[in-house]
Amino acid sequence: MELKECMNFLLSVSQNKVFKYFSKLLEEHGVTPAQYGVLNCLWREGQLSPKQIGTMVYLEAPTISGILDKMQKAGLIERSVDPNSRRNVLVSATPKAYELREKIEAATRTMNEKVLENLSETEKEGLKKGLESIINAEF
Amino acid sequence: MELKECMNFLLSVSQNKVFKYFSKLLEEHGVTPAQYGVLNCLWREGQLSPKQIGTMVYLEAPTISGILDKMQKAGLIERSVDPNSRRNVLVSATPKAYELREKIEAATRTMNEKVLENLSETEKEGLKKGLESIINAEF
Repeated sequence: MELKECMNFLLSVSQNKVFKYFSKLLEEHGVTPAQYGVLNCLWREGQLSPKQIGTMVYLEAPTISGILDKMQKAGLIERSVDPNSRRNVLVSATPKAYELREKIEAATRTMNEKVLENLSETEKEGLKKGLESIINAEF
Repeated sequence: MELKECMNFLLSVSQNKVFKYFSKLLEEHGVTPAQYGVLNCLWREGQLSPKQIGTMVYLEAPTISGILDKMQKAGLIERSVDPNSRRNVLVSATPKAYELREKIEAATRTMNEKVLENLSETEKEGLKKGLESIINAEF
């Protein structure tokens, strides 16, 4: 098989390239792509448990815990005790994170447009559907 | 923007999943996905300089150098001096690596079939074209 037919190769090289580009765009707002994923969930849903966030961004508990620690130090999120169940932690975005929302969402749109700009509508659809199907498949 | 519209998110989650699956398939043959990329080039081209390999697998010199060190320790590649230019190093696959070729290529086909099995022909085409276009784009 030629390397350009290997799905792992195609995904790794394209992901690495897009990740570097997106990281650079987000850098001036002081957030990383993974932190953007967490903020996206919190902006939409309000308060969430670390477990709920992990499910939404497809990351495991220890990884999410590390990301949340850094975000708390950077003043982007707060953790509080769930009043309904004192053993649970709830995470919410800080006012500082809400102030950054518009700029971060603009950076995300810029990244998406740049990444998709040379593709036909059919290719864009196939690409998104294909990636979603891989994410939802059992293997 | 919803997270599932964000190209960085879609690529990161799908790449992470495919990479883990492919790593597991290759593990019993003692190679990693990055090492497979290098072997694929050497099996096809014979001897290559580290720089040529880096260009083919889209990795930078220090990264390739680290991968080659581990492959040499594992007995998968040899480095020799280029007889035409003594300052250059040439890399080739060892007999041990050639013996593994068939099994590793079978694992790669298994991974590709699994990853693409739920997609229509149009989606497969769009996915591959889309990823190639991202890899070759300027940004």
